Amino acid sequence: MSHYTIGLDYGSNSVRCLVVDVADGRELGVAVWTYASGDAGVLTDPANPHVARQSPLDFVEGLRRTVPAALAQAAKDRAFAPAKVIGIGVDTTGSTPIPVDEHLQPLAAQPRFAGNLNACAWMWKDHSGMAEAEKITELARQHRPHYLAKCGGTYSSEWLFSKIWHCHQVDRAVFDAAHTWLEFADFIPAVLAGITDPAQVKAGICPAGHKAMYCAEWGGYPDAEFLSFLAPEIGALRARLPRTVTTADQAAGTLCADWAKELGLPAGIPIAVGAFDAHLGAVGAGVGPGAMVKIIGTSTCDCLVAPNTAQLPDIPGVCGIVDGSILPGHYGIEAGQSAVGDIFNWFVKHVCRGEGKLHGQLRAEVEKDKPGQSGLLALDWVNGNRTILTDARLTGLILGLTLHTTQAQIYRALIEATAFGARRILDRIEEYGVKVEKVVNCGGIAEKDPMFMQIYADVLGRPMYISGSAQTCALGSAIMAAVVAGKAAGGHATCAEAQAAMCSYKDTVYQPIPENQAVYRELYALYCELHDSFGVKGASFDHFPVMKKLLDISRRAVGAKP
Amino acid sequence: MSHYTIGLDYGSNSVRCLVVDVADGRELGVAVWTYASGDAGVLTDPANPHVARQSPLDFVEGLRRTVPAALAQAAKDRAFAPAKVIGIGVDTTGSTPIPVDEHLQPLAAQPRFAGNLNACAWMWKDHSGMAEAEKITELARQHRPHYLAKCGGTYSSEWLFSKIWHCHQVDRAVFDAAHTWLEFADFIPAVLAGITDPAQVKAGICPAGHKAMYCAEWGGYPDAEFLSFLAPEIGALRARLPRTVTTADQAAGTLCADWAKELGLPAGIPIAVGAFDAHLGAVGAGVGPGAMVKIIGTSTCDCLVAPNTAQLPDIPGVCGIVDGSILPGHYGIEAGQSAVGDIFNWFVKHVCRGEGKLHGQLRAEVEKDKPGQSGLLALDWVNGNRTILTDARLTGLILGLTLHTTQAQIYRALIEATAFGARRILDRIEEYGVKVEKVVNCGGIAEKDPMFMQIYADVLGRPMYISGSAQTCALGSAIMAAVVAGKAAGGHATCAEAQAAMCSYKDTVYQPIPENQAVYRELYALYCELHDSFGVKGASFDHFPVMKKLLDISRRAVGAKP
Repeated sequence: MSHYTIGLDYGSNSVRCLVVDVADGRELGVAVWTYASGDAGVLTDPANPHVARQSPLDFVEGLRRTVPAALAQAAKDRAFAPAKVIGIGVDTTGSTPIPVDEHLQPLAAQPRFAGNLNACAWMWKDHSGMAEAEKITELARQHRPHYLAKCGGTYSSEWLFSKIWHCHQVDRAVFDAAHTWLEFADFIPAVLAGITDPAQVKAGICPAGHKAMYCAEWGGYPDAEFLSFLAPEIGALRARLPRTVTTADQAAGTLCADWAKELGLPAGIPIAVGAFDAHLGAVGAGVGPGAMVKIIGTSTCDCLVAPNTAQLPDIPGVCGIVDGSILPGHYGIEAGQSAVGDIFNWFVKHVCRGEGKLHGQLRAEVEKDKPGQSGLLALDWVNGNRTILTDARLTGLILGLTLHTTQAQIYRALIEATAFGARRILDRIEEYGVKVEKVVNCGGIAEKDPMFMQIYADVLGRPMYISGSAQTCALGSAIMAAVVAGKAAGGHATCAEAQAAMCSYKDTVYQPIPENQAVYRELYALYCELHDSFGVKGASFDHFPVMKKLLDISRRAVGAKP
Repeated sequence: MSHYTIGLDYGSNSVRCLVVDVADGRELGVAVWTYASGDAGVLTDPANPHVARQSPLDFVEGLRRTVPAALAQAAKDRAFAPAKVIGIGVDTTGSTPIPVDEHLQPLAAQPRFAGNLNACAWMWKDHSGMAEAEKITELARQHRPHYLAKCGGTYSSEWLFSKIWHCHQVDRAVFDAAHTWLEFADFIPAVLAGITDPAQVKAGICPAGHKAMYCAEWGGYPDAEFLSFLAPEIGALRARLPRTVTTADQAAGTLCADWAKELGLPAGIPIAVGAFDAHLGAVGAGVGPGAMVKIIGTSTCDCLVAPNTAQLPDIPGVCGIVDGSILPGHYGIEAGQSAVGDIFNWFVKHVCRGEGKLHGQLRAEVEKDKPGQSGLLALDWVNGNRTILTDARLTGLILGLTLHTTQAQIYRALIEATAFGARRILDRIEEYGVKVEKVVNCGGIAEKDPMFMQIYADVLGRPMYISGSAQTCALGSAIMAAVVAGKAAGGHATCAEAQAAMCSYKDTVYQPIPENQAVYRELYALYCELHDSFGVKGASFDHFPVMKKLLDISRRAVGAKP
């Protein structure tokens, strides 16, 4: 008999429900629903551009809107029946904390907080707590430097305590009414399991470890004394944060009768502990020792794992290293570039003033160019640098411009710049002992842009695979669901077994071309020179040769004498 | 009685004849003729992109095509009569040497050299002698370092001996047939004066000093031993180069009967010694101690003078300092930027893929921006750097790009970059004791782009004037004609007197705005940091703060807290 699991993937603007065959990862049904509130689910404050909130009621409604629809679609397959669904997995954006009352009900549901954005979910991209983030970084640097070591040296305004503290500062009524705060990824499993006792919540190590400085080594969340430096009330809140924090292969609970009935699923099936979308996306793409997953979109998220049998040192500039945050038994390592697709979109829209189709035209013009031919070199910091410099105040640079430089050459140089940025991240992580033998790529660019992929293969010097599934996040959740269901119920015994069965690659694999690699090695050395000079305080280099070397490389690229 | 002079201005593609009233500089008649040969007068070699030649017969024909027409136009003024023309002045491009026979007839006129580009005039922008230029620089560095000191440290492929030597290397028949070589600026006065004896030629100090390492201090042209290092035949040629080399306020001869008849002018009127177009353009714009002239076009030429009563030190990176090359009794100093208008044209055409009207649109979008607001900084090296780095292998750079950067902001940043480049030149020259109190600007950009001019006023920190005449080169030639004619004949006693009478400014003067100056001072400091780091071998700077400072300046520009 076939068995199926459900993967729920809560993104920034919509929720997706995927029904998957645990035997081979076949996707039988999918349904997507865009959140109803605000602008595609995002609630903003005209007076403060840093505010981005969401309605937790939309999140709950998303279950009703997608699960039955996906099941109905799956039912077109005669082998499928809802009774054969053996588990549910959940991924969400984050850090997206939600203030809840003592029964875990969102404050946003209380009439007295109707229309109050502070009582809503604080979306990952909400930066209203910038000042608080800086103060947390400063306090940790002073009192608990080890807290910062695992999050790249800087506590972000996007993360849990920046948001809670900002709420404490600006809306004491909401802060005081909140019994505790649940991450979006912890909220959905608790809802499905019908948990109303805060002590019963099983929270994910992924949000806690990456965004709340949670670490088993130092006893979990930051200690109460430290949190009291923010505010005594935040110190007191610590005792009400989830007591159990665990990996996503554990059950957060089982499907309660009410939701089973409402969604048309068997009551009592296990619900996996929640995790972030990118992390379960990596699982769905086949992340494992030696296999890095790159989720390439407007920005990128790079996910890697390393067995936790050996101690992994802190990696400077890498935002998060958390034991179990991606796969159990492994350190989860998260890195990324703050803009990739966004850079090409910016160039086409703002610099070229072109339409979307210009992307393809520009690619076509330069796809046969030799590496180095244009003589251009760029820094991919048009939206700052997330890894390894963790500096939002870095900006983009283009060098090597001549009276012959074309629009399309600049476009290609920007692609190459993002590849060099990706290489710099990979090099840094490898320097600390994490091997990368291949890269699995997800996202539209990976699927649709062969020039981009070949440049990446040549620059990164590793074969570039493309994930077989276009919805790896939901697939990753469904994989975790198969693991929490367990072998006996028709699922899988381990994540590795589930991934082996349920993940796949597309047929096209981009292999590095040795002669391209040789040129890109030279260009990458120049990139690193600029990278360190403009990005690292106190570095000192003589840049005089940079432009000359580029001209030499350019001439050699077209077979001319230097 | 009114008196008039004629200014002949030989440009790259056409010749212009201007009839001017010596009393007030009033322009009575003008005629322009585009050279007949090749592409607007330029003869190219499909096999060698560095070749650019012109027909000296076109140059002669230009006299017939323009002088009578300009006189006819002037005759519409009832006070005018050709008999009242008291002198002729000549300016040309250069270094544009012409191989001639022992009667000073161009070899190009000989049937045996018909169609031979090497027998033509070697246009200023001919770079076929690149290899020879490098060898001359090397030889001078080794044997006669003082030769290089006055021409910026590098002998250019555009200059006389690079061209003669290259001819010697590739076309011995032409080289051997050439009795001597005349600069374009020396050829036209000799033609008009009917001079056929090489010993009678009076050559200009302007071409000789700026392009042929001529210096009275060391006895004129480079010595025969040095020229023999190039080739013994070039060493021997030295004796046949013009014996008399002098300033443009001296007469090269008087108008011969044949040409007087052909052109409809009085025979015997004096013809001024020739000079380069930019230099006489500076005279026509009112160059003098403290008044620098900028001729702004696709590139710029900056001309300054300093009294020769005190010794002027060599100025590193400034291509030419020649006693008397602009005004008699003054050192003439020539500097320039290898691309200005060309940069904006490149950006609009190649990067924006826009039409010419886009220039105006982009200006309109950013003309109200505050200095520093965009956070952008650029290096104006898109076509290399002529002054003060004398390095054609430098390339352009743009820094400070964000996802909000617009096409128009980049356009403005490129204008600012050229202003910073101009400031760097001005600073270098002032450091060596030449004061600049005001700048007089010539060219279409100066007349038509108020934003450009205000940025220059703010960056250079000096009032920016615009030349009253739109044809300052021809006017400068006419001024020299008035001086060689002399007071007694109705002309002027000195250049200063002639300039005072004949030059004017437009009413609009751009004054520096103190608050803009303050911001541009900060940006200029960052520009200098990049300039020296990327442009000066061995300089070493820590660039880390550059991007951050730009962001701070940008926020302050719009009144935000840093």
